[in-house]
Parts: sequence; structure tokens; C-alpha cells
Amino acid sequence: MSPDSPQTLVSLANRMLAREGVLDAFGHVSMRHPADPTRFFLSRSLAPELVSEADVLEYDLSGEPVVATKQALYSERVIHSVLYRMRPDVNAICHHHAASTMPFCLADLKLRVVTQLGASIGKTVPLWDQRDEFGATNHLVTRDAEAISLAKCLGANNMVLMKRHGVTVVGATLRELAFRSIYSCRDAELQLRAMSHGDISVFTDEEIALAEKFPEATLARAWDYWRSRLPNA
Amino acid sequence: MSPDSPQTLVSLANRMLAREGVLDAFGHVSMRHPADPTRFFLSRSLAPELVSEADVLEYDLSGEPVVATKQALYSERVIHSVLYRMRPDVNAICHHHAASTMPFCLADLKLRVVTQLGASIGKTVPLWDQRDEFGATNHLVTRDAEAISLAKCLGANNMVLMKRHGVTVVGATLRELAFRSIYSCRDAELQLRAMSHGDISVFTDEEIALAEKFPEATLARAWDYWRSRLPNA
Amino acid sequence: MSPDSPQTLVSLANRMLAREGVLDAFGHVSMRHPADPTRFFLSRSLAPELVSEADVLEYDLSGEPVVATKQALYSERVIHSVLYRMRPDVNAICHHHAASTMPFCLADLKLRVVTQLGASIGKTVPLWDQRDEFGATNHLVTRDAEAISLAKCLGANNMVLMKRHGVTVVGATLRELAFRSIYSCRDAELQLRAMSHGDISVFTDEEIALAEKFPEATLARAWDYWRSRLPNA
Amino acid sequence: MSPDSPQTLVSLANRMLAREGVLDAFGHVSMRHPADPTRFFLSRSLAPELVSEADVLEYDLSGEPVVATKQALYSERVIHSVLYRMRPDVNAICHHHAASTMPFCLADLKLRVVTQLGASIGKTVPLWDQRDEFGATNHLVTRDAEAISLAKCLGANNMVLMKRHGVTVVGATLRELAFRSIYSCRDAELQLRAMSHGDISVFTDEEIALAEKFPEATLARAWDYWRSRLPNA
Repeated sequence: MSPDSPQTLVSLANRMLAREGVLDAFGHVSMRHPADPTRFFLSRSLAPELVSEADVLEYDLSGEPVVATKQALYSERVIHSVLYRMRPDVNAICHHHAASTMPFCLADLKLRVVTQLGASIGKTVPLWDQRDEFGATNHLVTRDAEAISLAKCLGANNMVLMKRHGVTVVGATLRELAFRSIYSCRDAELQLRAMSHGDISVFTDEEIALAEKFPEATLARAWDYWRSRLPNA
Repeated sequence: MSPDSPQTLVSLANRMLAREGVLDAFGHVSMRHPADPTRFFLSRSLAPELVSEADVLEYDLSGEPVVATKQALYSERVIHSVLYRMRPDVNAICHHHAASTMPFCLADLKLRVVTQLGASIGKTVPLWDQRDEFGATNHLVTRDAEAISLAKCLGANNMVLMKRHGVTVVGATLRELAFRSIYSCRDAELQLRAMSHGDISVFTDEEIALAEKFPEATLARAWDYWRSRLPNA
Repeated sequence: MSPDSPQTLVSLANRMLAREGVLDAFGHVSMRHPADPTRFFLSRSLAPELVSEADVLEYDLSGEPVVATKQALYSERVIHSVLYRMRPDVNAICHHHAASTMPFCLADLKLRVVTQLGASIGKTVPLWDQRDEFGATNHLVTRDAEAISLAKCLGANNMVLMKRHGVTVVGATLRELAFRSIYSCRDAELQLRAMSHGDISVFTDEEIALAEKFPEATLARAWDYWRSRLPNA
Repeated sequence: MSPDSPQTLVSLANRMLAREGVLDAFGHVSMRHPADPTRFFLSRSLAPELVSEADVLEYDLSGEPVVATKQALYSERVIHSVLYRMRPDVNAICHHHAASTMPFCLADLKLRVVTQLGASIGKTVPLWDQRDEFGATNHLVTRDAEAISLAKCLGANNMVLMKRHGVTVVGATLRELAFRSIYSCRDAELQLRAMSHGDISVFTDEEIALAEKFPEATLARAWDYWRSRLPNA
């Protein structure tokens, strides 16, 4: 496969985000088909660190693989299919349960921008609680209705916190997504560490607006660095 | 030996749980003999990360090796023999002192389910204090009476906290045990991190009941991932 | 190139400080030209861990490369050019956003000397807030006016905290700079850990004066150690 | 050299304790000459992780090398020479600045035994403050008078905390010393983590007395494990 094939890029993104502590045995990264907006690429059910090109399947926007398969699939792939339907501007999605952001999903805390790189978070990070609309569940998002509710809560923002569950992040490109997924975790970690020692100073909305768009060169520099850290880069 | 031999599986489980931070120089994992419920497999006395197939011995339910040996044995192997006697439904056991769960053994804290994967903990985690029944000891569980007291406190639950000591975890299968041992530690860590920043929201008993049983595919996906992270996987 | 060439040394320092957790995908280290004080060496725009000799360019004190290049350059290189202009005693500079020191840039905390090695911090660490003079910005230091303001705040000290941004450290030599960059981070980490458990005891100014100058042998021992930890040392 | 030569053992202990996070670029481990109690073995000045057999020198109890050398020596080697003079029962010494124990040297905290393995700490851990007797210093222990004051504070105990500096640990054997150095750090870390969440339960003096002596098999199992983790074990 070409080094720029969606399968290769999705494999790389999965492995990078695992290497950088965003993903562990669970969580997943997808990208929209570059030529056909009604399709997207996502791995079969597999730990992100192990995803190779051959594991990446093509799905339609109902969340079903284009080529029927007997392989196990992610039960939460509906998060991806629904978000690609409802957010035409989104071309890459990550769903994760990183330790850095989980305190914001468990305690009553607001995720704020505390550094220039963290500005990729954006001004507002909504919080979705599956309980509100669906009552007692196992907290997996496996039905269209659940994913639609999540997508509505996300709105036009860059990421949404999921109460007692994790985070879903979106990006206009796969590189932007990787950057935002990693630096929102780093920002969250810095915020938590600092808050333990008193009130903190955060970016204003005006400052976030000035900082939140990163030039392609910045995203590429970070992407190349993270790729270089993979065992078989 | 076959890749599915109990010796191979016990060796793998020891090395995985060491790699994932559940075990260090101490702690141990055992599994019941698949064909003879009156026997179980456990390493000779050795740091878990170093346990190879050849180090795994067969024991009877009195805690003695089936084939006499001059090798040093774990002084706390009675935890395993007694639990296999008192819990016919249990086919795998881990005893550990992970840093993630020790605060729950030292401070007055309740281990709660805070994520879907953490639901493997179950609804109730009892706390056993060797002091209550046995007064001042060196805190090792080396006598049948001590292990029986521990087993009674565990009851029908999945794990028991041991005051100033560590944790004992049980499973219906070795994969379930590995999953529960690792994700109870991860859940504990997340809970501790979040609690440092205020009151937290946890799973209700109803939600735990919906989440606590994991399909074999989920356990296998995690097992395969952890195995892939071993130096000589 | 000679193993003592500025290009080699700057490459080594970048990789060391990345390996020791001071730098990640961003941040940079420079040194003044040993023979021509109006020149300095700094990498092209690249993650520090990836900087090789061939990536290190020679700059003049206006912050422009001596040999014109189409390669991307660090947008914040003005921090280096201005500091070399305003501090003739400084021969090496590191700009970083280490997790250890960020709480001091976010919360209202004073960075204090708590160990002998931490005395390399010096008696006073000023805090610069880009907001004070320049209002709402993206928090990058990319204009001479911003770097001059930062340099004035630094004054004759060894390092300056940058509010919501990071740290800039200076040294008389590259080895002193590496030592100070690493041990100020370690000292910060120790201070944060200890402060979580009550009031702490710190070095007095008199003690800092006795401890802050490190013999070349000490700097070399640490440098050799950090170099030995690099993958291709 | 023989695998049991003091030089080999001292090299191994230095590298192990560095690998396990007790030592970093600084700190040192020594052992008394097995045949001549008026001599001891300690590395020349070098980061512990880099200490090979060839770097280990023989010293007399005045702290001078038996064979004159031009190599740089540890400035704090007087800690070793004085303790070997004043504690005939001590055959191995470690001086370190581990992050785990530093909060106990900075804040007003008592290091307590919280686990069976931590019982190697013993009942009492005195705290020495160089300031009390010597006023303002750079906090290095380089003179006999300073080391004698430290030794008096240590008394018959196993370890002594040094205010704003670090820890000195002693053992009857090198293996006991390695075990105590590592498990006192682990115990300290567990204590700190637990104390962040409320009052903790600790071992009583009676329980410490029952737990503090470890059989040679336990020390050997841990030693073999730590040795196996060295890059060139």
C-alpha cells in the first residue's frame, strides 16, 4: 500500500496515540474516505497499538463494513458513523479513555486551555452524560440514538467529555486530530497538576481564538516526531 | 509444551501482570488444573516477570507440590489452595501489592467502579484486616486459618482488599482474572486522581450489573494486546 | 564533523533534554558561536529528539540564518537572538514547556531551591506575563519587542518563568545550561510533591550562594551520564 | 573478575538502584571489604548507572583510595568511611536523593512502615539537619565532622533522612542494603499516595519487629529480579 493510503495513515494514528498514552487496549481512531465522504476507515476490533494497514476496514455511514466480514468489529463504531453523518466538516475522529482526561469525566471540573498548544481544545468542551437521556446503561455507545445524542452535545465543538466514560475528539484532518487528541491530554494533565496547588490562570476566549489554528507545518512537525517514536516507524 | 498448556498460560499471565504494573518483585498468579479441580498451577518462588513454563509447578489443594521439590516455594501459596477449596467457581487467582490499589488498603477509602472496564471489579469489594482475628503479625498470609479468614471475607465477590498488605483477585478464567486485575488497578488509579479534585460520580449497582460481564472477545482482545507487549511475546 | 563541533553539541543537548523530559515535540536549545559572539547555533524547526548535526544552522543576532534556507525555522528563535544580544555572559539557551515547571507558570507558586543540585536555579526566578505588555496574544514570542520584554524581566538571573507558556533558561556554557535545565525541573518536581504534604523547608539565599556554582567535573559527570542514556549515544 | 568479587557486586548494586529509581546522576553505593573490615569498595566519581567493575576502587577508613589515583572521587565519600568506622555491624551503604523520599526531607512528615516489605525500614528513622550544627552550608557532607554528626543521628537505625538533601541507608549485607533502599522508597511512595486521601493505618512497632528480618531467600529473589532488569544483566 502507498505510504499515504488511508489504511496506512489510520494504522499510524492508532499506534501513535497508543504510544503517547491517549489510547491503551481500547479506544479507536478513524478517518473519512478522502474521495468519498460517505465512507470512512476504521480498524476491525483490535488494540490500537496492534493495528496494521491490513486491519483497517472501509465502512459506510450506517457503520457497517463495505465488504462483509466475519471479523469482530468495535461495538462503539456508531460514534464514528454518526459523527461523520452529522459533521460534514469532520474528517477524523478519536474516541479514548485517557487517564489525563478521565478526572474531568468523573469530578466536577472544567477542561480549560492553559497553554498555546492546548488551544487546539477550543473555547468550549461540552459534557455528555449517557444517563440523562438513557438511564442506566453499561456506558457503551452502541446505538444510533446514543451516538446522535452525543453528537448533538458535541455540536460544532472540537471535543466532548463523556461522563464516567471518556472523550470523543474530532478534526478537519487526521494530523489535526492527532495533535488535538495528544495536546488536549497534555493540557488536561498540566491543568490537574497546577490546580492541586491553588487557583490557576487560563487562556481567555480572545487568546484561544488567536492560538487555536495551527499551521500545517506545526502539525506536521509533531506528527513526524510521534511517528519517529514508534517501534517500527 | 503446547502454547495452551497451563504452565505456558500461567507464565504468560505472571509476565503480563508484571509488565502492566500489577506485580513487581512479589505477588503471584495461579490457575486451577483444567481437568482436575483438586489441583492448581503456580510458580516456584520467583519474581513474576521471570516465571517461565519450567518454573510452574502443580499443587494439590493443601498447597503442597504434587511432585516433591527442593525449590523454594511462595510462603503465601496458602491463599491459592484455600481459595480453590472454598470457591469452586474460581479457576484463577492473583495476589498483588500494586501501587494503584494500596491507598485503598491504607487510607479509609472505598474502591468504586468509575468506568465501564472497571465494572469487572463488581458491586462490592470487602476489606480484610489480618489484625482483627490474628492480632500482631508480620502481615504475611501463611497459615490455613489466615487464608480461610480471608476467603470468608472475600465471600462470593471478585476481589478483597487486605489492610496494609495488598489485594487478592479471583476469576472464572485466567483471561477474566488478568482483565480484572489490570482494570481494577486502572480504575483505582483513575478514582484516586479524580478524587483529588472533588467529589466524583460513580457507577450505580444497576449500571455495574449491566457492565460487569465481558464477552470472551473483549477479554481476548485485551489479553492479546498485553501479550504483544511482553519482551519475548 | 568533529565530536566537539557546535553542531554536534547542540544536537546532543537537544536530544538529552528531550530524553530527560525537559523538551517534547517542542522547545529548543541553542549555543553561541565559540569564536564569534555575534553568531549562534540552533536547529531548523524540528522536534528536539530528532535534531541531528545536519539540522543545526548558524544564525546572526537578528535571528536570521547566516546562509539563506528554505527550511522551516522556529517561530520563537527571537528568544535566542535577543537574549544573546542583551546578555553577553550567556552562551547557551533553552526554551521549554516541561510538565515539572508548568504548575509554576499557571498557579501562584514560587519556584524555590530545595536541594543542592537545584541551587543551579539561583536566588531569584522572575515571572513574565506576555499579557502585561502585549494584551491578548497567542502566547508565542515571535517579535523582537516581546523577546526584549522577556529579556528585561529575566535580568541577570538564570531562568525566567513565562505565564501560561513555559520557561527560558540561560547558561555560561552548554553543559551548565543542560545541568540547570534538568535540575531546575527535578527541583520543581520535588517541591511540588513535598508541598502537597504541608509547609516545606527551602535553601536560604546564603546557602544558595554557597551551592550554586558547580565545578566543571560535576557538570561533566552529569553530561556524560545523560549522553550515555541516548539511544545512539 | 569473579562474579562474586566486591567490584562486580558494587557495580551491580549501583546499576540496579539506578534502574529502580533510587539513584540518578548522583548518589552512590559501597560495600565493606569482606576480608578486611578496615577497607571498603566504592566507585570513582561517576553516575551510578555507568559504574563498571573497573571503576570500583578500594578505600581505607579515612576515605582515601588505597592505591593513589588521579581519577575524580565522590566529594561525599566521607559518609561511607565514617559510617564504616562508627558502625562495625554495617557492611554496605547507600546515599541517595530519590524522589520518593525527598518529601520526607522537605516537609514535616514521618516515614512510616505501611507494608510488610517496607518493614525493612525499621521502627525509627531519625532526621538530620546539617544546619543545626554547621549553619549555612552548600548541604554537601564532605568533612569528617559533618559525617560524624550524621552517624550520631543515625545511631543504631537502618536509615537517616537528611533535611533538604536525601537519605543514607545501611545494611548488614549488600543484598539487604539493596532491598532496604528500594523498599523504603516504595513504602515512602505508597505512604505519600495514601496520605493524600486521608489518615492512614501503619504497622505497629510490634508488627515491625515481626516483619523486619527478611530471610536470605527473599533478599536473593528480589536481587535476582532487579539484576535481570539491567540492560546487560
